[in-house]
Amino acid sequence: SVKKGFDFTLMVAGESGLGKSTLVNSLFLTDLYKDRRLLNAEERIIQTVEITKHTVDIEEKGVKLKLTIVDTPGFGDAVNNTECWKPVADYIDQQFEQYFRDESGLNRKNIQDNRVHCCLYFISPFGHGLRPLDVEFMKALHEKVNIVPVLAKADTLTPSEIKKKKLKIREEIELCAIKIYQFPDCDSDEDDDFKQQDYELKESIPFAVIGSNIVVEAKGKRVRGRLYPWGIVEVENSAHCDFVKLRNMLVRTHMQDLKDVTRETHYENYRAHCIQSMTRMVVKERNRNKLTRESGTDFPIPAVGDMTDSQTEKLIREKDEEVRPGDPQAESAHLLGQPPADHEQRSQQKFETECGSHAGARSHLEDEAL
Amino acid sequence: SVKKGFDFTLMVAGESGLGKSTLVNSLFLTDLYKDRRLLNAEERIIQTVEITKHTVDIEEKGVKLKLTIVDTPGFGDAVNNTECWKPVADYIDQQFEQYFRDESGLNRKNIQDNRVHCCLYFISPFGHGLRPLDVEFMKALHEKVNIVPVLAKADTLTPSEIKKKKLKIREEIELCAIKIYQFPDCDSDEDDDFKQQDYELKESIPFAVIGSNIVVEAKGKRVRGRLYPWGIVEVENSAHCDFVKLRNMLVRTHMQDLKDVTRETHYENYRAHCIQSMTRMVVKERNRNKLTRESGTDFPIPAVGDMTDSQTEKLIREKDEEVRPGDPQAESAHLLGQPPADHEQRSQQKFETECGSHAGARSHLEDEAL
Repeated sequence: SVKKGFDFTLMVAGESGLGKSTLVNSLFLTDLYKDRRLLNAEERIIQTVEITKHTVDIEEKGVKLKLTIVDTPGFGDAVNNTECWKPVADYIDQQFEQYFRDESGLNRKNIQDNRVHCCLYFISPFGHGLRPLDVEFMKALHEKVNIVPVLAKADTLTPSEIKKKKLKIREEIELCAIKIYQFPDCDSDEDDDFKQQDYELKESIPFAVIGSNIVVEAKGKRVRGRLYPWGIVEVENSAHCDFVKLRNMLVRTHMQDLKDVTRETHYENYRAHCIQSMTRMVVKERNRNKLTRESGTDFPIPAVGDMTDSQTEKLIREKDEEVRPGDPQAESAHLLGQPPADHEQRSQQKFETECGSHAGARSHLEDEAL
Repeated sequence: SVKKGFDFTLMVAGESGLGKSTLVNSLFLTDLYKDRRLLNAEERIIQTVEITKHTVDIEEKGVKLKLTIVDTPGFGDAVNNTECWKPVADYIDQQFEQYFRDESGLNRKNIQDNRVHCCLYFISPFGHGLRPLDVEFMKALHEKVNIVPVLAKADTLTPSEIKKKKLKIREEIELCAIKIYQFPDCDSDEDDDFKQQDYELKESIPFAVIGSNIVVEAKGKRVRGRLYPWGIVEVENSAHCDFVKLRNMLVRTHMQDLKDVTRETHYENYRAHCIQSMTRMVVKERNRNKLTRESGTDFPIPAVGDMTDSQTEKLIREKDEEVRPGDPQAESAHLLGQPPADHEQRSQQKFETECGSHAGARSHLEDEAL
C-alpha cells in the first residue's frame, strides 16, 4: 500500500467566504482553485449549491498520496437555505452506492474508492456559537461522514475569545446531540507525552484555523502568513492557530482511522440499510410470484397479508446472515434468487429503483480532475 | 436648539455577530447592551427578527445629544431569511406614521420625533462582495431611510483586501441600483483641504470598521483596541480602519444633513403616499355617498364608473394642493370634509385603515429606554 500510495477524500463544507479554498491550498501546499471564478451579487441570487471535485497527487518523503477534495460552493449563500445540505448528503450517498455496486460486481480487484473519508465543517468565527444552519447541516450528515469542525478565520479572534468560543461550540455540539468524529482514545500504557498530545488534540475541537498562500517575512524568516498593519499572522505558528495540529491529524496521525471509521461505520450503515430495503422488496416479490403462479394470471396482484410482519422481519434477518461478505457471486445470487450469470445486470436494476434516488442531484457533479 | 440639545436616531442592521453592538458602544463610549443575554443554538432556531430600542444622553463640550439606537437582533440568523427585512421596514414606517399623526394633530409644539435618521448596514468581511440578503435588505429599505454601508470587523482583512472589497461592494451597489445615502457635494469655492476631505469620505464607502470596548496599552499609550498575539489593533488609528471617519461623519459633519434628508425626502415620500391613498378613499366615499342619497338606500353600493380615472387623478392633485402644511385644522378638515371639532378622531380612524397595516409587527417592539 505504501508503494501504491494512499487515497484520501476530504470534503470541505460551510458558508461561502470562510476560507475553505484557502485553507485547503495551505494544508496541501497546492493551488487547487486557480481557475475559480467568483460570482457577483446578482449571479449569487440564483445560484444553487453545487458539488465540485478536484484531485491532486502529493508526494511527501517518498510516500504518494492521491488526494481528492470535494467542495460545496454556494452553501449557505442563499436568502433561503432550507435543505441546502441535501446535495451534499446525496453526494456522499452516491459514492457509497457506487462502491456497493462495484463491490457486488465480478471484478473487485480495482475498485475506485470515492467514499468521503472526512468532512471539514467550517464554523464562522462571528457566530455566537453555532448557527441554526450549522446545527442542521451537521445533524443531517453526522451518520454519513466523519465531521471535523473547524473555527474558520481565527485571526479575527483574540486567544481568550477563541478559548471561550471553542468551549461554547463543544457545549452546543453536545446539547444538540451532534456526533462529530471522535478521536480514538489512546492506550493506557502510552507514555505521558503521547497522552498529553492526545488530550490537547481533543481539547482543540473545533480547530481554530487561518489559511494563507502568501509568503511574508516575519522576524527574518519567510513564512506563510497574513500581513496586517498591526503585525504578521503566521499560519504555521501554534501560538497563532491550530493549523499544524489539524494538518498533522489529517495527513499523519489519523488518516487511517478516518478511513477505517468510514469503512466500518458509515459505509456499513449505508450497506445494511440498502440490503434491508432490497430484501424487503425480494420478499414482497416472492409473495406476489407465488400468488401469480397459483391464480394463473400475469397481472401483478397486490400481496395479501399471508405473512405477518414478524415473519417478514425474520426472513430479512436470515437474508442478512446469508449476505455476509466472502463470495460475491453467491451473495448476489442468494439475494436475488437468480443464477450467478446475469446477477450483475439484475443488481444494477435493483439499485436503480432502490438506492438510486439521487440521480437528479448527480448532474450537479462537475469533475475537474487537475 | 443647541441649548435644548439634539435628537438623533440611528439604526444598526445586518447579520448577527458582525459587531453591531460593539461598534455602537465604541462610537458613543457607552455600554448600551450590558443586560443583553445571547441566545444559544437551540433558541436561535425558533428566533425571529425583533426590534429593540435604547436611548442614551450624551454630552460633548456642553452640547447635549439624545441618541436613540434601534437594533435588529436575529436578522439573517435563520436558515430561511426570506423577507426578514420586513419587521425593519415596518418599524421605520410606523415612526413616520406616528409623526404624521402628531403633525396633523392640534398640539404640534412638542412632537416627539422617533423617525430613523440613518441606518448603518453591516456587510460581512467574508462575503465575496454583497450577499443576496444584503441586496434584498438594502433594496427594501433604500427609499425609507439613509443607508450608510459599513464593512464590519475589518481587522480580518489586510489593507489591499479592504481596498479591493470596497471597490467591489461599491460596484455591486451601483449594479444592483441600490440608493445608499449620498454625501452632499461640497461647494466649488471651498479650499482644497476641505475638498480632499470630502473626496476621501466618499472613497471610504463602505466604511471599514473595527469596534472594541477594551482598553489596551499600545506603545505606551492606553487605547481602545484588540490585543492579538501578533499585534494590537487600534480602533481609533486611521491606518487601521475608518472608525474615526465614520464617527466624525455621524456626530459632527453630517448629522444635520442626515436629518434633513430624512425629513425632506424619506418622510415626504411617505406622507405623499399616505395623503394620496387617503384622498383616493375620500373620493370613493363621496361617490358612494352621492349615490346613496340619490337612491335613498342606506346600503353601501359599489361606486359606478361615473368618474374617469383621469378625473380621479385630477381631484387627487387638487387635494394634494390643499393639504400643504400651514394650517393643521384646515388641512384635516378639508381632507375629510368634516368640521374641525372631531377631525382628530376621524383622522385617527383613517390611519388605522389606510396606513396602519403594520399593527401586527408592532408587538415586536420592545422599548428599553435606559
